[in-house]
Amino acid sequence: MNILYLIDIVGTMVFAISGAITAFDKKLDIFGVSAVAFITALGGGTLRDLLIGSTPVAWMNDLTYLTMIAIGIILTVLFRPTILRLRHTLFLFDTIGIAVFTVLGLQKALDIGIHPVIAIMMGMVSAVFGGVTRDIVCNEIPLIFREEVYALVCIAGGVVYVSFGLFTSSTEYIIISTVSFIFTVRILAVKYHWKLPNF
Amino acid sequence: MNILYLIDIVGTMVFAISGAITAFDKKLDIFGVSAVAFITALGGGTLRDLLIGSTPVAWMNDLTYLTMIAIGIILTVLFRPTILRLRHTLFLFDTIGIAVFTVLGLQKALDIGIHPVIAIMMGMVSAVFGGVTRDIVCNEIPLIFREEVYALVCIAGGVVYVSFGLFTSSTEYIIISTVSFIFTVRILAVKYHWKLPNF
Amino acid sequence: MNILYLIDIVGTMVFAISGAITAFDKKLDIFGVSAVAFITALGGGTLRDLLIGSTPVAWMNDLTYLTMIAIGIILTVLFRPTILRLRHTLFLFDTIGIAVFTVLGLQKALDIGIHPVIAIMMGMVSAVFGGVTRDIVCNEIPLIFREEVYALVCIAGGVVYVSFGLFTSSTEYIIISTVSFIFTVRILAVKYHWKLPNF
Repeated sequence: MNILYLIDIVGTMVFAISGAITAFDKKLDIFGVSAVAFITALGGGTLRDLLIGSTPVAWMNDLTYLTMIAIGIILTVLFRPTILRLRHTLFLFDTIGIAVFTVLGLQKALDIGIHPVIAIMMGMVSAVFGGVTRDIVCNEIPLIFREEVYALVCIAGGVVYVSFGLFTSSTEYIIISTVSFIFTVRILAVKYHWKLPNF
Repeated sequence: MNILYLIDIVGTMVFAISGAITAFDKKLDIFGVSAVAFITALGGGTLRDLLIGSTPVAWMNDLTYLTMIAIGIILTVLFRPTILRLRHTLFLFDTIGIAVFTVLGLQKALDIGIHPVIAIMMGMVSAVFGGVTRDIVCNEIPLIFREEVYALVCIAGGVVYVSFGLFTSSTEYIIISTVSFIFTVRILAVKYHWKLPNF
Repeated sequence: MNILYLIDIVGTMVFAISGAITAFDKKLDIFGVSAVAFITALGGGTLRDLLIGSTPVAWMNDLTYLTMIAIGIILTVLFRPTILRLRHTLFLFDTIGIAVFTVLGLQKALDIGIHPVIAIMMGMVSAVFGGVTRDIVCNEIPLIFREEVYALVCIAGGVVYVSFGLFTSSTEYIIISTVSFIFTVRILAVKYHWKLPNF
């Protein structure tokens, strides 16, 4: 699973950059920017670990995560204009990150015996809660509650993952299918402006 | 305790409806409405379980809760005008729900050896924290911090529960007394506009 | 360590007063004032304990904390004008409180085998998260994200603590050095308006 780990830590860095950029826009100081970057990158996995009772939370056992976040913050401070210009590239990494976070979170919940329906929720929480917290601390109604379909894409991806698991025991196959599914659907959703109805 | 369980799951549904209706008013999409419904219904019990260290949190072990929330969301989507007209009935269920959540939360804390004073707080947290979180994610100062006396009613109910426990070992009697107490006082508080002083 | 415990509980009371005063300014009722006081005083230690998996959280095992908070609330209700006039004295207690919370949080994390880098973060979280939560529930962008350097001072203090620990095994010496360091730097930071750059 080395490739998953690699995407996991790169995804963490991309999430940190997304948090740092939001915080910049709010005119926070460098501590605020760092704090929002941390929260955005680690919030999802942290909430998942707290809810399923897996503590100390995961990032406490591997300093690589903090290191990647620190790199993300430094990159944002030094190269913000460039990063803003690269937003399409970042969006691709962000989407791969979301897909991998969903799979890792879901699998972790299954591993400790959580019911698959709840595990699917935990996969989604791992992927989206960081962004929700980012918006709450920046004093906005979370973006995800208003416009984005990506939480639903994560849930659909989780259903794919669990369903495929009933038919094959090839973990690689299941993971690749799920990540591709989430990646493709989210790209399509953004490209064609799919929205959930609000009433 | 079948009747308590029944009220617990119906109360969960009523809380979900209350969250969904608030989210509708904020023009959230269907994912946002669902998320706020979940948070409102499960937030109190979740915080209690995290604080007392009872993880995985309770609703992960019984899919009935998620099912009742899903039903609450569907009912809100389909029958919102009717539900708004039934708000007095809903208020009664909400009040019974609060009373039962208080008793169940308090008893759970006592069961794992928490000091009664803290257990009373945990009963109150179980009953009110869902609504607090609903207001925070919807970007408002929590209603409960500004106008409602019901947190205090839950604490008073907790005191009744623990005090009666010193004099009798009849659990049914204690539970019925406490639930009736909370129910009655909250109805009176709302009917006669009891308010806490703000200075 | 009796002196540390003493400062810990006095610091808890001072934090409660700071929360109560903020809540007053928001025109919350007495329950809201109490809730914000509790959250401000206990939020940091609670988040630390949840993250490192030490539950039930610390204040559940020692009613002294709740008692000190209750005293803080009562003092605020009765003597608010006096307290506002004593704000310089309060600020000193607040600063000592922050220093001691940092040391106690850091040491607790080290005690259960957390990596020193993460333990330094946990020390900082113990000291500052209460104030962050206070600002979130009062619907403001956390002050600490915008203006204060004190989170950084706590991190620097944590580095002092861990570094000195490499050279001496005299716990008293390390603690006194760290607390003095945090106290002095924060006083200087406020006196000379040190600010972090925001970009």
